[in-house]
Amino acid sequence: MPVGDVSMPQMHVVKGVRIGTAEAYVRYQNRRDLVIFEFAEGTNVAGVFTQNAFCAAPVHVSKAHLHVANPRYLIINTGNANAGTGKTGMLNAERTCAKLAELASVQATEVLPFSTGVIGEQLPLERLLNGLQPALNSLSADAWGAAATGIMTTDTTPKGASEQFELDGVTYTMTGISKGAGMIRPNMATMLGYVATDAPISRELVQQLLSETVNVSFNRITIDGDTSTNDSCIFAATGQAGGVEISSAQDARYTVVLDVLTRMMKRLAQLIVRDGEGATKFITVAVEGGYDTQECCDIAYSIAHSPLVKTAIFASDPNWGRILAAIGYAGVKNLDVEKIQVWLDDVQICKDGGAAADYTEAEGARVMSQAEMTIRVDLGRGAAKDTVYTCDLSYDYVKINADYRS
Amino acid sequence: MPVGDVSMPQMHVVKGVRIGTAEAYVRYQNRRDLVIFEFAEGTNVAGVFTQNAFCAAPVHVSKAHLHVANPRYLIINTGNANAGTGKTGMLNAERTCAKLAELASVQATEVLPFSTGVIGEQLPLERLLNGLQPALNSLSADAWGAAATGIMTTDTTPKGASEQFELDGVTYTMTGISKGAGMIRPNMATMLGYVATDAPISRELVQQLLSETVNVSFNRITIDGDTSTNDSCIFAATGQAGGVEISSAQDARYTVVLDVLTRMMKRLAQLIVRDGEGATKFITVAVEGGYDTQECCDIAYSIAHSPLVKTAIFASDPNWGRILAAIGYAGVKNLDVEKIQVWLDDVQICKDGGAAADYTEAEGARVMSQAEMTIRVDLGRGAAKDTVYTCDLSYDYVKINADYRS
Repeated sequence: MPVGDVSMPQMHVVKGVRIGTAEAYVRYQNRRDLVIFEFAEGTNVAGVFTQNAFCAAPVHVSKAHLHVANPRYLIINTGNANAGTGKTGMLNAERTCAKLAELASVQATEVLPFSTGVIGEQLPLERLLNGLQPALNSLSADAWGAAATGIMTTDTTPKGASEQFELDGVTYTMTGISKGAGMIRPNMATMLGYVATDAPISRELVQQLLSETVNVSFNRITIDGDTSTNDSCIFAATGQAGGVEISSAQDARYTVVLDVLTRMMKRLAQLIVRDGEGATKFITVAVEGGYDTQECCDIAYSIAHSPLVKTAIFASDPNWGRILAAIGYAGVKNLDVEKIQVWLDDVQICKDGGAAADYTEAEGARVMSQAEMTIRVDLGRGAAKDTVYTCDLSYDYVKINADYRS
Repeated sequence: MPVGDVSMPQMHVVKGVRIGTAEAYVRYQNRRDLVIFEFAEGTNVAGVFTQNAFCAAPVHVSKAHLHVANPRYLIINTGNANAGTGKTGMLNAERTCAKLAELASVQATEVLPFSTGVIGEQLPLERLLNGLQPALNSLSADAWGAAATGIMTTDTTPKGASEQFELDGVTYTMTGISKGAGMIRPNMATMLGYVATDAPISRELVQQLLSETVNVSFNRITIDGDTSTNDSCIFAATGQAGGVEISSAQDARYTVVLDVLTRMMKRLAQLIVRDGEGATKFITVAVEGGYDTQECCDIAYSIAHSPLVKTAIFASDPNWGRILAAIGYAGVKNLDVEKIQVWLDDVQICKDGGAAADYTEAEGARVMSQAEMTIRVDLGRGAAKDTVYTCDLSYDYVKINADYRS
């Protein structure tokens, strides 16, 4: 059961984006496991990808293609991650692009492949290629919901966000989907995110906007610290709703777009945490008062990754010593613990490095029993801050990932 | 249930070491929760302590005392970690030392305090002080077993190792105990280790021996990645079995002692993993072929900390993609995945970065179903290697740490 409201909003059509889906039988029957995005000519596209050294074949190919061309198509399959598949995997990813390029009369380098699912098995190439034409046949502007469902693996709910905003009197749309959190064997977790807008934005700024917003959204969530081999996030600006291209970060419209994109990316990222494996709580870890954002981030992740903190939260147990310990072993140099304050929402649990005098376990337990809470840490030595989002660690996390096979 | 044989061996007496225990009622009734070690005059003692910035009051005091004197007494209490206790905690640790010093007619700086148990509560100082004289009254050379039991928190079994060895015709003894793995709230995990020998070793070499062996034993185990606030390990050489003091690492006897101590420290450290919370498997992660030990260590820990790898092992599921992913996100620079080989015991699962051609899931499952296994990774780019020991992640880990309070 996801935490909080994760329902799909009205998914506004983005001018210049069409989406097709098909049943390619990659792994399962009776599901649309193949999704194709088509971008209008002139669309500027940017991507960010996993840092995992064992990154999957489609990640290699997507990065290479993005380097030389502006993509016109994205192909996404679930059921098979095409990771740990060596040279054959690379070839299969390239072949998929080539086939779609042929069918759609574009260059193969204008197609980006994405895969999510089982790791270490070769793609069922024939079935995948056979699915491309049916997917193309189904292209439609109003299929964001189908796409959100199509890219799911073990997600329990499709994930989407959509907004309309105005720049200089023109109404633009931004719509996006994401998936992730499912790691039931034989699947490998993959976080995927796709966001498009019909606003006109230069390619350089599309990349800048994506990088900037990924760093406060997808790069700030963690469920279990396991970085996938396939993580990818794409942002596309079609420019099809008209207006003059935004080509400078000084343009006042840039700030508006950044604001909308930031909100959307955070929502899409947080939806993944809310649907985290076995998650029963949604936790914001906000660290402030640091010298720099790196140390804020290090401490936030140390708390967010601590199995002891996560199990305590699962149990609604205000075991604040575990939070202090996680701060202490984050590896931040010269930390003066006597300057550290910690709050659970509005309840101060730690004052100047020790137990807050007026803290009561009843107050701590009250916050801990909520479905959503913020752990706030003030390091008391600077003005930097950063925030990470995570969930608790429950029996179901172990159950899902231990996957007793019958 | 601990994994494998964790039974206590015959605990040989170490000349120059006496141990006393008492019921101090720190937290629970009817248990000897106070342990005192007495070292003969002239004993050389070394200590290593947690790197956690939120380290406990007794860690601060022990480090300070070790800096100015050679300890004659150790005081260890369970039930309360005296961590997150601020200035009062420091004062209480000092008072405990001062009281014992008074009773035993030594300097307060010749006493080291150690605490393990609940975090964030003040020590019940009166009860602790009242337990010191009874503990002193019970001092005996033959109480290592009682000490191993006395320092337990949520350990399911006492942990000890003991060996006799010969140097230049003289028989010496080395005996040690450890505790750790218990984190049931309201306790905070604390790893403690105490090893003593009656061989004559200079203080400088005692420290060198301890540092060297801790780095291949206690510093190479992980259960959940949560570094405690109280971890401490002490090595003492009383010299009471006679012989000429070993004062140079070039002395052939040094190598013998190093060998015995290494074996003992590894055993004491591994006992903690075998008794890890909810552990059903004991896992050795051996990484070789690296440029340096740091990168071997980083990758070994990345595997050993991965909840996905640990749950897969719990389920006896040869989900090797999770191991590859953990190698890939360890943050090692310029890793050439095509040079990487991975084995589960004797079964090669990954060859040159992809699935090994002759690997079968049946073979993988055979190894995975064992109570003990080695994950071996060859990075294929150097001669460095390192090894880390860990356990799986089971329902019981969550159960123990989520601690549903009735």
